[in-house]
Amino acid sequence: MFTRIYNARILTMETDKPMFLGEIQIKDDTITYVGSMMKEGNVKWDKEIDADQNLVMPGFKDAHTHSAMTFLRSHADDMKLDEWLNIRVFPAEKKLTGESVYWFTTLAIMEYLTSGITAAYDMYFYVDDGARAVRDSGFRYVFCDSINNFDGTVERVEQDFLRLNQDASRQISHRLGFHAEYTTSREIMEKLAALAEKYQAPVSVHCSETKKEVEECRERSGMSPVAYLDSLGLFEYGGTLFHCVHMDEGDFEILKKRGIYVVTNPASNLKLASGIAPIKRFLDEGIPVAIGTDGAASNNCLDMFREMFLVTGLQKVVCDDPEAVPAMEVLRMATIGGAHAMGLSECDTLSVGKKADLIMIDLKQPNMQPLQNLEKNLVYSGSKQNVKMTMIGGKVLYEDGRFYLKHSVEEVYQKANAFAREILE
Amino acid sequence: MFTRIYNARILTMETDKPMFLGEIQIKDDTITYVGSMMKEGNVKWDKEIDADQNLVMPGFKDAHTHSAMTFLRSHADDMKLDEWLNIRVFPAEKKLTGESVYWFTTLAIMEYLTSGITAAYDMYFYVDDGARAVRDSGFRYVFCDSINNFDGTVERVEQDFLRLNQDASRQISHRLGFHAEYTTSREIMEKLAALAEKYQAPVSVHCSETKKEVEECRERSGMSPVAYLDSLGLFEYGGTLFHCVHMDEGDFEILKKRGIYVVTNPASNLKLASGIAPIKRFLDEGIPVAIGTDGAASNNCLDMFREMFLVTGLQKVVCDDPEAVPAMEVLRMATIGGAHAMGLSECDTLSVGKKADLIMIDLKQPNMQPLQNLEKNLVYSGSKQNVKMTMIGGKVLYEDGRFYLKHSVEEVYQKANAFAREILE
Repeated sequence: MFTRIYNARILTMETDKPMFLGEIQIKDDTITYVGSMMKEGNVKWDKEIDADQNLVMPGFKDAHTHSAMTFLRSHADDMKLDEWLNIRVFPAEKKLTGESVYWFTTLAIMEYLTSGITAAYDMYFYVDDGARAVRDSGFRYVFCDSINNFDGTVERVEQDFLRLNQDASRQISHRLGFHAEYTTSREIMEKLAALAEKYQAPVSVHCSETKKEVEECRERSGMSPVAYLDSLGLFEYGGTLFHCVHMDEGDFEILKKRGIYVVTNPASNLKLASGIAPIKRFLDEGIPVAIGTDGAASNNCLDMFREMFLVTGLQKVVCDDPEAVPAMEVLRMATIGGAHAMGLSECDTLSVGKKADLIMIDLKQPNMQPLQNLEKNLVYSGSKQNVKMTMIGGKVLYEDGRFYLKHSVEEVYQKANAFAREILE
Repeated sequence: MFTRIYNARILTMETDKPMFLGEIQIKDDTITYVGSMMKEGNVKWDKEIDADQNLVMPGFKDAHTHSAMTFLRSHADDMKLDEWLNIRVFPAEKKLTGESVYWFTTLAIMEYLTSGITAAYDMYFYVDDGARAVRDSGFRYVFCDSINNFDGTVERVEQDFLRLNQDASRQISHRLGFHAEYTTSREIMEKLAALAEKYQAPVSVHCSETKKEVEECRERSGMSPVAYLDSLGLFEYGGTLFHCVHMDEGDFEILKKRGIYVVTNPASNLKLASGIAPIKRFLDEGIPVAIGTDGAASNNCLDMFREMFLVTGLQKVVCDDPEAVPAMEVLRMATIGGAHAMGLSECDTLSVGKKADLIMIDLKQPNMQPLQNLEKNLVYSGSKQNVKMTMIGGKVLYEDGRFYLKHSVEEVYQKANAFAREILE
């Protein structure tokens, strides 16, 4: 399958490479050429896409999410975190089945596509049903294990790790992880550290999301969550930490020393009143940052444009510095940062040998005019409305508001609504 | 012209009126019926719109904006406020002409329509060219005068007030106002207070946007901006204050006593690092709040969905209270609050006798599914992508991504780009 996208403003996201007018060539799921427009050649293209001078760039990576939680969208807002978890979320989750997770995940995938998100780092139950939804749709997923005291054994983690990393196309992969310090016993964490050692693998986990979590960890262990988890040997091969809202001074050194990625989830952190993560400080320290939506239960949408604006807008006001976290930095977080934080370096930029996971941004919407500084337009003015096309592994899954998926839109909505009603009523 | 919108989920925004399935009837620019579905009657409809069970509600009101500043979008981001104003904004504005303002305003109107905004409270130069853009497009505008030491006389303000309030259809109206305390002499403000007295009219103004502004006003006058302006008699007939980020304890009493509206501009306040306005406190005190975009120069987009999420999200985190400013409260600000803050009570709700300024929200996008709590979906998950139709004064100006305006999209973009290049290069 040979595909060509031409007449495009291309932003490869490679360091210091400015936007240029050109074309991208794709063989199956892999980019084979990115550069200026080519003369007519001998290639017989299976598909030629005229970008009409719109912008083509790497897809966004949702670097922390709980996809299937779409069923809890707007079910528990304007509530305190405790009530939210204990009254609304946990009882509902007990009623989940593999089949319902399949449909709730499929709904999330549709939403990712409308927002130009081409891969998600997902943490949830029923991984095989999640994987089925991903395969059926053509989406790209990295599973993050979420073992904790109430769910799973480290043996099961190892099995999932081995089973879900067999996909040579890397449509699906799996990484070691656990839910959080406050839900996981020291014994499980130590076994997980041994697993990380065995496979020389990084570990991902929710960390320092709320003040309460940090205080309680300090009471239990005498250390901040970052320091405590590090002391257990969990980050010998690096890691990815979700949230990192409340940092101790010493935490920054540990993150740097271990080469740890931070995934920030600003909408969720606002909505649950968790706080505002010190993103500018992370960048100043050279700690890489990625962006996540955290899923529809707490956010309530899967919209990378809203997250991007929040990442920079919040830093500007918190640091009292309108120069904090400029637009290109935010674009890097949402693309390269995310890809690396979830172990998908083959999806980070538009360059030869990388996966053809890309999006076309409609510049012919009023919010992109005049055509002055397109990177800034994207971050400060962009919206889902501007996502004209989303391609994953060389396949167009969403274009001009239409989905190209196994199931019809109507079927997905019908199933998601029926299962949600069944669970929530 | 008789129009009927049927098979719609209707949210009238009248107090305590829940959403219901029904229809809306319109004669020319005015709503004549809102209620349950009617049986076939004798009316010959000029236009019948099947809402297909999508949501119909009052259009959003952008209660503080500088529309024509679209030409400065992404021209001056990631900069300090002083540099932004003095190096980028002011020199560029000197090169504006009536004709360029016409096209930049037309571009802004297109963007408002894509965001479901049906009226704007605009503060800018070349009002007659702005008015021409509004008339040519079918949009609705309230002009807020922006007199200051560098531009205009109070005599000119009175002329504009009389001339721009002659439109019986209320497509265009004009209200007394001035730029800000720090740009306007006491003499001008006192003359304006006399004008307010003469016409028993409220006065609108930028107020307490930055810490610096408040401190400098206190040095000059010994009072906060709110108290100082009130002491000059400007708010004898009420008023509307834009921003209100930095409030003194005594300011709340004055706002209450004078029946003043606050217009909050959260995206602009983040981006320029101005601060976060105390919205929850305003609501607790019973002070009415509306929402503005502040225009594309500082924001950089005209997107009421982003503003709505910010209004509540920022309060939740600042007040450490996830229950702060619930979704319905935000919807009221964006519709009724805005209409009242700009003196357009005929556009506040969907009810008989009100203007047919309404929007249809596409519920068949994944971010609105499952169909659980639609008000919360709108505020926490909604985006411009969900704006299926925007109607002003009974006329459809935007539907399914198409504009129904005097000028073609291509012409507007071509003119806006050409004038922007001319001014900025």
